[in-house]
Amino acid sequence: MNLDVLVRQTMDVDGCRRNLDTGIDQPEAEFRRTTGQSSADRRRADDPILVDIDASGFGVKRGQRDLSQISHVLVLLNLANYLVAAVMDDDALTLRHLRLPGSIVLDVPGRLGNVSNEVEIGRGKRGRRAYSFDDVAVVPSRRTRDPQDVSTGWQIDAYHFDIPIMAAPMDSVMSPATAVQFGKLGGLGVLDLEGLWTRYEDPTTQLQEIAALPEEQATRRMQELYDAPILPELITQRLQEIRSAGVTVAGALTPARTQQFYQTVVDAGVDLFVIRGTTVSAEHVSANAEPLNLKRFIYELDVPVIVGGAATYTAALHLMRTGAAGVLVGFGGGAAHTTRVSLGIHAPMASAVADVAAARRDYLDESGGRYVHVIADGGVGRSGDMVKAIACGADAVMIGAGLARASEAPGQGWHWGPEAHHIQLPRGERVHVGTSGTLSEILFGPSSLADGTLNIVGALRRAMATTGYSDVKEFQRVEVVVSPYQPH
Amino acid sequence: MNLDVLVRQTMDVDGCRRNLDTGIDQPEAEFRRTTGQSSADRRRADDPILVDIDASGFGVKRGQRDLSQISHVLVLLNLANYLVAAVMDDDALTLRHLRLPGSIVLDVPGRLGNVSNEVEIGRGKRGRRAYSFDDVAVVPSRRTRDPQDVSTGWQIDAYHFDIPIMAAPMDSVMSPATAVQFGKLGGLGVLDLEGLWTRYEDPTTQLQEIAALPEEQATRRMQELYDAPILPELITQRLQEIRSAGVTVAGALTPARTQQFYQTVVDAGVDLFVIRGTTVSAEHVSANAEPLNLKRFIYELDVPVIVGGAATYTAALHLMRTGAAGVLVGFGGGAAHTTRVSLGIHAPMASAVADVAAARRDYLDESGGRYVHVIADGGVGRSGDMVKAIACGADAVMIGAGLARASEAPGQGWHWGPEAHHIQLPRGERVHVGTSGTLSEILFGPSSLADGTLNIVGALRRAMATTGYSDVKEFQRVEVVVSPYQPH
Amino acid sequence: MNLDVLVRQTMDVDGCRRNLDTGIDQPEAEFRRTTGQSSADRRRADDPILVDIDASGFGVKRGQRDLSQISHVLVLLNLANYLVAAVMDDDALTLRHLRLPGSIVLDVPGRLGNVSNEVEIGRGKRGRRAYSFDDVAVVPSRRTRDPQDVSTGWQIDAYHFDIPIMAAPMDSVMSPATAVQFGKLGGLGVLDLEGLWTRYEDPTTQLQEIAALPEEQATRRMQELYDAPILPELITQRLQEIRSAGVTVAGALTPARTQQFYQTVVDAGVDLFVIRGTTVSAEHVSANAEPLNLKRFIYELDVPVIVGGAATYTAALHLMRTGAAGVLVGFGGGAAHTTRVSLGIHAPMASAVADVAAARRDYLDESGGRYVHVIADGGVGRSGDMVKAIACGADAVMIGAGLARASEAPGQGWHWGPEAHHIQLPRGERVHVGTSGTLSEILFGPSSLADGTLNIVGALRRAMATTGYSDVKEFQRVEVVVSPYQPH
Amino acid sequence: MNLDVLVRQTMDVDGCRRNLDTGIDQPEAEFRRTTGQSSADRRRADDPILVDIDASGFGVKRGQRDLSQISHVLVLLNLANYLVAAVMDDDALTLRHLRLPGSIVLDVPGRLGNVSNEVEIGRGKRGRRAYSFDDVAVVPSRRTRDPQDVSTGWQIDAYHFDIPIMAAPMDSVMSPATAVQFGKLGGLGVLDLEGLWTRYEDPTTQLQEIAALPEEQATRRMQELYDAPILPELITQRLQEIRSAGVTVAGALTPARTQQFYQTVVDAGVDLFVIRGTTVSAEHVSANAEPLNLKRFIYELDVPVIVGGAATYTAALHLMRTGAAGVLVGFGGGAAHTTRVSLGIHAPMASAVADVAAARRDYLDESGGRYVHVIADGGVGRSGDMVKAIACGADAVMIGAGLARASEAPGQGWHWGPEAHHIQLPRGERVHVGTSGTLSEILFGPSSLADGTLNIVGALRRAMATTGYSDVKEFQRVEVVVSPYQPH
Repeated sequence: MNLDVLVRQTMDVDGCRRNLDTGIDQPEAEFRRTTGQSSADRRRADDPILVDIDASGFGVKRGQRDLSQISHVLVLLNLANYLVAAVMDDDALTLRHLRLPGSIVLDVPGRLGNVSNEVEIGRGKRGRRAYSFDDVAVVPSRRTRDPQDVSTGWQIDAYHFDIPIMAAPMDSVMSPATAVQFGKLGGLGVLDLEGLWTRYEDPTTQLQEIAALPEEQATRRMQELYDAPILPELITQRLQEIRSAGVTVAGALTPARTQQFYQTVVDAGVDLFVIRGTTVSAEHVSANAEPLNLKRFIYELDVPVIVGGAATYTAALHLMRTGAAGVLVGFGGGAAHTTRVSLGIHAPMASAVADVAAARRDYLDESGGRYVHVIADGGVGRSGDMVKAIACGADAVMIGAGLARASEAPGQGWHWGPEAHHIQLPRGERVHVGTSGTLSEILFGPSSLADGTLNIVGALRRAMATTGYSDVKEFQRVEVVVSPYQPH
Repeated sequence: MNLDVLVRQTMDVDGCRRNLDTGIDQPEAEFRRTTGQSSADRRRADDPILVDIDASGFGVKRGQRDLSQISHVLVLLNLANYLVAAVMDDDALTLRHLRLPGSIVLDVPGRLGNVSNEVEIGRGKRGRRAYSFDDVAVVPSRRTRDPQDVSTGWQIDAYHFDIPIMAAPMDSVMSPATAVQFGKLGGLGVLDLEGLWTRYEDPTTQLQEIAALPEEQATRRMQELYDAPILPELITQRLQEIRSAGVTVAGALTPARTQQFYQTVVDAGVDLFVIRGTTVSAEHVSANAEPLNLKRFIYELDVPVIVGGAATYTAALHLMRTGAAGVLVGFGGGAAHTTRVSLGIHAPMASAVADVAAARRDYLDESGGRYVHVIADGGVGRSGDMVKAIACGADAVMIGAGLARASEAPGQGWHWGPEAHHIQLPRGERVHVGTSGTLSEILFGPSSLADGTLNIVGALRRAMATTGYSDVKEFQRVEVVVSPYQPH
Repeated sequence: MNLDVLVRQTMDVDGCRRNLDTGIDQPEAEFRRTTGQSSADRRRADDPILVDIDASGFGVKRGQRDLSQISHVLVLLNLANYLVAAVMDDDALTLRHLRLPGSIVLDVPGRLGNVSNEVEIGRGKRGRRAYSFDDVAVVPSRRTRDPQDVSTGWQIDAYHFDIPIMAAPMDSVMSPATAVQFGKLGGLGVLDLEGLWTRYEDPTTQLQEIAALPEEQATRRMQELYDAPILPELITQRLQEIRSAGVTVAGALTPARTQQFYQTVVDAGVDLFVIRGTTVSAEHVSANAEPLNLKRFIYELDVPVIVGGAATYTAALHLMRTGAAGVLVGFGGGAAHTTRVSLGIHAPMASAVADVAAARRDYLDESGGRYVHVIADGGVGRSGDMVKAIACGADAVMIGAGLARASEAPGQGWHWGPEAHHIQLPRGERVHVGTSGTLSEILFGPSSLADGTLNIVGALRRAMATTGYSDVKEFQRVEVVVSPYQPH
Repeated sequence: MNLDVLVRQTMDVDGCRRNLDTGIDQPEAEFRRTTGQSSADRRRADDPILVDIDASGFGVKRGQRDLSQISHVLVLLNLANYLVAAVMDDDALTLRHLRLPGSIVLDVPGRLGNVSNEVEIGRGKRGRRAYSFDDVAVVPSRRTRDPQDVSTGWQIDAYHFDIPIMAAPMDSVMSPATAVQFGKLGGLGVLDLEGLWTRYEDPTTQLQEIAALPEEQATRRMQELYDAPILPELITQRLQEIRSAGVTVAGALTPARTQQFYQTVVDAGVDLFVIRGTTVSAEHVSANAEPLNLKRFIYELDVPVIVGGAATYTAALHLMRTGAAGVLVGFGGGAAHTTRVSLGIHAPMASAVADVAAARRDYLDESGGRYVHVIADGGVGRSGDMVKAIACGADAVMIGAGLARASEAPGQGWHWGPEAHHIQLPRGERVHVGTSGTLSEILFGPSSLADGTLNIVGALRRAMATTGYSDVKEFQRVEVVVSPYQPH
């Protein structure tokens, strides 16, 4: 059980804040669940309970550092003359009690225990129940609003975007040209700086070849095509193409190649630097090479960094502590991954986003106000998925397959990621996603399809309006139900 | 956790109703779970527990207004000399205790906590587990009854119907002619006053064209056909056609067009006025136009209003407070919607109906006796779904696809709703439902099909008889199991 | 929550059995969970806890009659000087306390609450989570055994059978000839006395016609064929055919026709009388005709009666109280039913059998030793289902489709029940089940198919051996897991 | 509820370890959850809580032997002057209390009760929720690592293997030649000593015939082919073929034939002796023959024994007590089994492995340090399944179908187990698995397929690296989520 459930005992100022051991004057104590800093957050029903009994010598986890480690707190105040608090954390169950003039017995198992989503797989193993976007849905509640009153704007660091969408740095989605076009439409296009565009002077032939490959040869031939070396001068050239168009410039490297190429990237001039891998941790261990020290790297770099994938609260929290401006959430959730079957690894996206959103909130508190953006990266195939990603706590989404369906997309109806051409262990496949419309129609319509592939910003706008929310940040609070989708 | 669990402490009249702080004479206290006004309701095992400790100065939520906000109540009565009550609502955990001559420790976590259907999606987000009709089934219990002894009658306002069914205001289901025929068969036909019948003098051609459209052109052509203006004189004419046949007259507008056309509708004469949208809230916010003030509108109107869709307890409760005679429950649950995939919105119907039924019960109490009808609108495709809708608490159902299967239906085997031809963002499709039999056979048989599409009233009658219930209101109490349906 | 959880406080004989109000001498009290009469039952971990505090004037549910009504018992014994017991039943939460020399606080929420399978469908409705046979599986545990050491014998009333299987009274399964053959193979064949064999002198033609009917005409033509009158002389003749072969004779009527024909049946001579309908209750209500008074009927009859379907604890308990020798468990679970889609009714069989097995245990106690047999009727399509039915508590199973697969079966590869030809509301269809082998091969092999349709008794024998059980009654205790089946 | 939850009350040495009845000096007690011997194990959040209150005369389960029997422990320490402990085990609920100078009320329902995975199937039956590999997935957490820094080594008894994989003793997987080749590649090949290789001098013809059999004749013909007698001289010859190649030699017998052939096997010389059946128990009961006394057999044998299948904690614990070096976990989970449908038996593998891993841990404690290896045998079809098996606690996996896909495999694209040719009751079928690549490519790549059938060791290595673990034993601690897999 990994519930970081905390209770902060707040008493009124006169008399009660003194040492509980010496007595309290006011018999009526008030427990308030608080978390984070904003009053908006305070009102959230799903906030954890923070324990902070100010009793020198007897305080429960007094001066506790890593509150996320506490899994279960029981506070028992006996009316006779003792205050008893039992704290169960990962390593020990500690029992403490205090002498009191009066006492109170308080047990909150309903809150602490019943919503736990941990299940026992078998006697020797427990696991959390995790949910994908298909498992959840947004429900309308009290209020409705006009779609035109809704703002879909997104601001990260100094950069403002009209739509909360990053285009995924994948060769099937982003070329320098589509990056420019996507930027002009209000989003943030990210170019893969390890893809065909930095390996070939003009990769048009290669893209056409990939689109034409027969099924059984695709993986093998892509392994060969991506074996060509990355040319630093092409990195420079591609980024300058984008910059000259006047849109925000963003390029992506994997952690493994960041040290080798980042200087080229920075020199070429990027506004946002993306470090993207299937799993990126703040603490990479290697016996052979000096691993990338993310914290130091980000600190020394002048450019804001968006980094990921991270799929859990802890992983994301550590990434946030490196100084990143944004964290990409995901692992193998996208259309072009088969990691669940090959690696056994899967991070259901609704749970992953909600976890990382909690890390953002806790890090906001811990850092005294640094707001790190949470970007859902994977599983955002249809407009409904984008809606759900934000409903689960994302500030923005990174879309691959959904934009690969544009008529301008370099993939020409096909979509693939770097996993699809790994030399030793391909963990994805080139998939056919087809073509739905122009990039502009995919984003803003008009639509004549009801399958969530066209007018995706209009869909987000309508979902927000129907549930009464007026901006993306606010919409993270919308009510969600769990109800696995069973199409007929 | 949104459990509005309440406990009302009832003591016998002589002595015990005095201030608990000054002592109670009778050591044997009795806690009774009560709710609503009727004794029938009182006996329901699933009723919430209402807390109402009459102790001046110390009362738990004394004079509480919005009981629905209380999520968790713990009542602790210590034998020594204090009564302690902990109230956990959405914002705070309040702890109160009273001095007593004797005390009792009472903890009811099993009741309060274990049946909670809230799950943690991730650390930062919780959601309720919600159920569709396919997830539940009725089970027979102690008693059986003759089907002919069962009444399927339904009374709303001054209007009585032999069957608890409204025909959906959709062009594929209701024409003036089928509205009349449906009324004569005992139900309530509702004409869509924004459909083809009020846009075209004779929409026969358009209906035939829609039925004949190839798949890939359907949405686009329907967008065009529905772009014709609504003619007020046709509204008048259609309603008078229905009225002249002597059946109850009902017409439907969307909230957006209600202010523009309602006067026409009222002047033409309707018995029941239906305001129907995907989501209708009592509190619509708009920066551009003065939104419809439902409360004032209904108050000033002389005609009873049925309004919806509403999908949650809160949304429905607010609609009930506007003075509506009935609330339509649903959002995107029907056969002609794809809102889950495009908007990410879904309101599983079994849960939505049960939620709104609770709102009806609480509003009945709050209003001192106004009974607002709950009409399930969506997901009622087969007779079994109608049975389940009532079992979950509906007073009646609104049927679309099921009646579009009639040989008389204007859709001619096809079915579509207004979502299917939205200009910017179509969120449904024209679907082929086929033809099962005449309207009369669909309602009353005889049937030679076992798929729940014929003799649907006979099926309801038999389900009620098999479980021993004799009227629709009573049948809302039937036992239900949760068991997702897996056809082989 | 319908947990009938009871706790019986047992204290040692000297001193402690006296009135708790006057004090107890021995401070160490012992709570034992007991139930039923046999010591075997006592050891079951899943037995409920029975409360029976022997305290005159203060006893919790002292002399309680209908223990099944109690849903939640909390026993709180305070160390100071009060014994407090809170009893929550369906109608009220009663709180009682007793003065004691010493006291004990005992809360057993883990036991009482956590295994509750009740879920909240919505605020206004709760339902139990129910399981079908496909949802569960048997697991081997400590011990194994030789298959040849296993007994599959079943004894009901004076009749012994080598295999715990009744052949369903359906025209596709049982003719007089197959009833005889099935009896000689060790089972109990039951003839439908309202089927073709009592309507036609020689129904061979009709059976052949049904087997040859095209899909779309089947229901309608069967409605006609079953419209022929039932001839009492044929009832007599068919039963005598079976009797003359020397096997146990059993015939089935529906409740509606029992009064009309039972005398004919009894005069013709049956060993076991079966009353079988989709739902049979002990309390049928009718405004038109005097309903069958089952209790009086069974009391006056000289022949043991097996009656059902019953799908819940309460329904079965009431049937047991009529004096029935056995109860058929099921409703619409079989291969030939579509009641879930047409009536919304469904009784998942694993839960239904486990419920009725609990009614058998409680009735055994209540009646002072009458053991009523529980026969799973529905959903027993493959040998694995039979194994699970017994694992959930059945004494025997009634098989339809599984025996309709015999080459001798009158259905000739087709299977149907009375629901399939209901005149007004057919709720099942004629289904094609094919032919697996001879009746003998279906029961005892040898098998060359691994699909659970051949050697079903061998499969039961092996399942019992693999889990270490040696007779059917004992095998009801085998460990079961819940794990929905997902074939690849 | 089978939670073996235990709490050990540990107090500091001076004063508190004395009889609790006479008082304790130190009011601050510390409860530590401990289990096993290693400090690594101590830190695991999922460890049970061990109760061991050292109070002569009043101790809860003082000197308890079989702690696994205790299902629920409540420890209640009242502040007044009594310590109360309620112990609920399978047979009784025992309540004990002690006089104390001070007291503490401690209830840990969240820990004890809420993660229970037991559900109520119906009133008379409970069952655990069990999970298959498809239901779970590994999630990356804080740290990442280079794949080349990961060790996949496995050591059992004196034998070291580079990869934690046993090849299943099935004729479609292992011939003497492939056993040698598999050994040279770093794994442990096991030859079925009751298969075709010990029945025929040269089974090449038979293997070709099986691969060529039409669907409907396969089972029947295999029954005939496997009816040939087992020739002891061929056992000797096959094992010597393997030994002469210099790899570790392992052969498998079923329990039924172990007594007949083990001497031949031992004389021929095996390094590891495998006893493998669908269910192998330490306590087989037979009325006809003296069953194999596993404990005595293993004690007397000089060779380490790997034995199974076992599917539950208890069954595995008993097998461990026989002295086995390893336990095979599984029953009917493999690709070639249909036992769920025919026998109703199924042991979902994720739960089974986690259960047996807990037995390993408890037996390690009980035996004072004997580490019995847990080998997942069944359901390990793709590399992802192998990853999950280890994540659930396996030390190694036994692979059948995955290796039958090798171009060298004797099955030639087909796969079958002994269940497929059982004479009376075949419970599996010959299945077509196809051919993915060479044995070496299946294990180590390179791969050009993303379906988890090639480079399975590379996949394990990458999964471990991505989650930051460096050896197989450590990887058993990786975080796992429950999220049923729904491929699109």
